Amino acid sequence: MKLVAWFSALVLFASAANAELVESKLTLPGELGSAVLYSDSSKTEAGPAVVVVHEWWGLNDYARGRAQQLAEAGYTAIAVDMYGNGKSTEHPKDAMAFMNAALAEPAKMNARFDAALAILRKQPAVDASKLFAIGYCFGGAVVLNQARRGLDLAGVASFHGSLGTETNAKPDTIKAKVLVATGGADPMVPPAQVGGFVEEMSAAGVDLQLLSFPGVVHSFTNPGSTAIGEKTKMPLAYDANADRVSWEALMAMLAE
Amino acid sequence: MKLVAWFSALVLFASAANAELVESKLTLPGELGSAVLYSDSSKTEAGPAVVVVHEWWGLNDYARGRAQQLAEAGYTAIAVDMYGNGKSTEHPKDAMAFMNAALAEPAKMNARFDAALAILRKQPAVDASKLFAIGYCFGGAVVLNQARRGLDLAGVASFHGSLGTETNAKPDTIKAKVLVATGGADPMVPPAQVGGFVEEMSAAGVDLQLLSFPGVVHSFTNPGSTAIGEKTKMPLAYDANADRVSWEALMAMLAE
Repeated sequence: MKLVAWFSALVLFASAANAELVESKLTLPGELGSAVLYSDSSKTEAGPAVVVVHEWWGLNDYARGRAQQLAEAGYTAIAVDMYGNGKSTEHPKDAMAFMNAALAEPAKMNARFDAALAILRKQPAVDASKLFAIGYCFGGAVVLNQARRGLDLAGVASFHGSLGTETNAKPDTIKAKVLVATGGADPMVPPAQVGGFVEEMSAAGVDLQLLSFPGVVHSFTNPGSTAIGEKTKMPLAYDANADRVSWEALMAMLAE
Repeated sequence: MKLVAWFSALVLFASAANAELVESKLTLPGELGSAVLYSDSSKTEAGPAVVVVHEWWGLNDYARGRAQQLAEAGYTAIAVDMYGNGKSTEHPKDAMAFMNAALAEPAKMNARFDAALAILRKQPAVDASKLFAIGYCFGGAVVLNQARRGLDLAGVASFHGSLGTETNAKPDTIKAKVLVATGGADPMVPPAQVGGFVEEMSAAGVDLQLLSFPGVVHSFTNPGSTAIGEKTKMPLAYDANADRVSWEALMAMLAE
């Protein structure tokens, strides 16, 4: 059985510096759904690679754009559809339904994540000792849970993700460095949840960097969130400063 | 009344780039004790300035060295004696007695801190809108409490400082950005204390950056702490990585 079927590969740009960014749409084995890989085909040296997990809206342009942005920064990146159905939405009700369906099958989510990692490990420009994962909102919770599983990840980063867990990480099981960026005024990630998470990570012996931005609400890295927030009356809004500072922290983590 | 009496000023070095680092020993008004100011006399433009508060050992070479290091990095810095008696020690029993005596008089500590800030504000190379404070161990708790007072500080940083408080900061009173670097295996700053602190800061709407270093114990920024830890059987040890990463985070905060 072939691990993945390449059903399209598109050269996004070829720059003067010989960078050639390629977007490849992939299907995951075992009917797990799809993913999109971004890589620089001119890269010859193996470097860090990143799994990107989307917000509760599903694998949309925003999540794909982040993976592409990582590839432009020199990293191989794969945006994986954690819902497995290729769907995305801008309606909170649908998003909630998609998310709850995924959360009801954690083993399937783990399998999707593992499949994405397996694809990264096969890329010529990927150093398998430097695998990272980042996630937004729902995806932030997903990547933290992957770290809690004790996977061999160099680091994970959660942006405005839920930080709670029903089962605290066991001491010394988390191998990944953990970066968390959270909005200080995000009602979905309230102070008690942030404090409880930091206590969990501290007790588990994790290398943790936490950034909390005052007055910032949910989905602050997504420029499209302000309009959706206004339309749906939900506490969603883009924040340029929090976006910039948290992205720079991620860049520093990947470059280390 | 003169605010301060300069009782010595020593040129520490004059470099090829025209930097001229001056160390000035000062007495604080009102019999509050002493402080040491480090500045670059060749600097003409007003920039950030930093109050440095020592560990429970008292104002020793280590704390003075940090202030000097800040001046070498281009910032005016003042190391203030928060015990007010000029004493320092390497014996935990004495340090505990000094610290408890200081903690019993919080108004006096506030007055010493205010006096140090007043000195900084009078320096030609200091921009009064860019006053910072950093502290180590006991000093970390001191600078956090100064932030909790609502002082007009641009930022405070605590290195292996105690994070607990009897009175949580009121929402929106803390003006300073807060940077906390803590050892994940420091028994003096246990996980529940770190979690409680993050909840406090988050609820108070603070711009917070927390760094937690796994396996790292108390006093990790002080190269002399390993020997004292071995001699006294206390959980003190230098950690080069945690020292470097936390210092770089401070440099980034000052440079912003």
